[in-house]
Amino acid sequence: MSNSEINKLDTSRYPQIEPNGSLLVAWQVKNRHVLVVGGGEVAASRIYHLLNANAKVTVIAPEINDEIKEREEKGLLYAVHRRHFHPSDLKLYETKKLPKLNNFSEDEYKKIDEWIIDSKFELVLVAIDDPIKSKQIYYLAKLQGLNVNIADVPPLCDFYFGAIFRKGFLQILISTNGKGPRMAKLLKDKIGQMFTDVEINKVLENINSVRQGAREYKLQGSENDIIKKRMDWMIKVTENYSIKEWSKIDEDQIDKIVESYPGELPKFPL
Amino acid sequence: MSNSEINKLDTSRYPQIEPNGSLLVAWQVKNRHVLVVGGGEVAASRIYHLLNANAKVTVIAPEINDEIKEREEKGLLYAVHRRHFHPSDLKLYETKKLPKLNNFSEDEYKKIDEWIIDSKFELVLVAIDDPIKSKQIYYLAKLQGLNVNIADVPPLCDFYFGAIFRKGFLQILISTNGKGPRMAKLLKDKIGQMFTDVEINKVLENINSVRQGAREYKLQGSENDIIKKRMDWMIKVTENYSIKEWSKIDEDQIDKIVESYPGELPKFPL
Repeated sequence: MSNSEINKLDTSRYPQIEPNGSLLVAWQVKNRHVLVVGGGEVAASRIYHLLNANAKVTVIAPEINDEIKEREEKGLLYAVHRRHFHPSDLKLYETKKLPKLNNFSEDEYKKIDEWIIDSKFELVLVAIDDPIKSKQIYYLAKLQGLNVNIADVPPLCDFYFGAIFRKGFLQILISTNGKGPRMAKLLKDKIGQMFTDVEINKVLENINSVRQGAREYKLQGSENDIIKKRMDWMIKVTENYSIKEWSKIDEDQIDKIVESYPGELPKFPL
Repeated sequence: MSNSEINKLDTSRYPQIEPNGSLLVAWQVKNRHVLVVGGGEVAASRIYHLLNANAKVTVIAPEINDEIKEREEKGLLYAVHRRHFHPSDLKLYETKKLPKLNNFSEDEYKKIDEWIIDSKFELVLVAIDDPIKSKQIYYLAKLQGLNVNIADVPPLCDFYFGAIFRKGFLQILISTNGKGPRMAKLLKDKIGQMFTDVEINKVLENINSVRQGAREYKLQGSENDIIKKRMDWMIKVTENYSIKEWSKIDEDQIDKIVESYPGELPKFPL
């Protein structure tokens, strides 16, 4: 191998591509219609996660289990139809009139927002024990441009679920790309242990208070220099204390940290 | 407060809803067209994550940065157009002919699959320094039923990104629902430390080998009883060893674990 060939190997300054993963994202279903077809345990789990994200959930199933019944009784579901799925259900809330977009005006934007919220299913989740019907629903929905997940049939999924840890604003998704759902759950529990005795929302508040404090401190220099200096310092501050330490810091200690700006940081305990 | 009122408080057997989160999912963009508008640092980061998930990436931007150029030179991008965005770009690959779905035949399904893969943008990601144009692209795309992310403008996002840890098949998304991106990065590094010296793919292989071994072991009883017994045992097995231990287990040790089925599990070191 010549020198020039060797130089070609992995000389990139940029992160190396590692294919065959998924694109992990936090989907925004707040106030958006989501359709759940099925009324069993998997459907109930989907509904739980959807409600945690403030979705407007419509359930269609001849029978629903006790968990879904309880969500219904508490008024958490947008609609429950105790019957089998029908193809027209995919357009349950669709209106004939598509909003206009000619002038790119705020008024037109508002009407499109309303149309998105009132008329469209953002996601279609199917969890029924009928592979043939599941497949039919998938292709019907895809032809209409909808995002679909057919439980337990990876090739018929626009997106997969995984194990989810939740504490306050913090959410963590552990995905093994379908290779090991049990390991994902195991890791979720292990990651969860990291946050015992940690008040996540307080950590976030504290970090934001420090940022706010640094922002109010008037430094010399151009606007760009000041922003860059503050950002660099914020990176150092955030990493200077552990999550457990950030969770224990009180107002006086925030002041101590801010006073050190833009210099050396005080050690914990402050 | 009467007894019946007390009984109403939190008597649910089901997980309590904790609203204002997102729906965390692993989006499947493998072989799907994704449009990236923009050629700067944020666009480059989006492209990196998209390529990790085998998307067909089309980039539209008058200029692209060195990282994107390198991806282009390595032939990793589907298309790069060095120009400004035009509304018709949202339909860049769309064909006029919508596939038919009359008979729900495998042949029709295949044509729909091809149409999805060849014609449609699964996601539209915008990362340009022009809030007015960004907003126009968002509403144009939404009217066409597309999934959109406008970088740094949460109200114009169907989905958010977060900090992502990757090791083999394992992917972990840390989201603070927009409240603390720096904390998300900090947590990502901390979670990453858990996996130092851990070969994730070996952990998954080992767990799957044990499951396979248990499956081959003939137990007495009905098919349902056998499946239930094996599933219960698999839960115990998975949790019996730490991730680091699972990563160190070799073939002989796998046999030892399988031999213990369905009884008491051997302790580590095996």
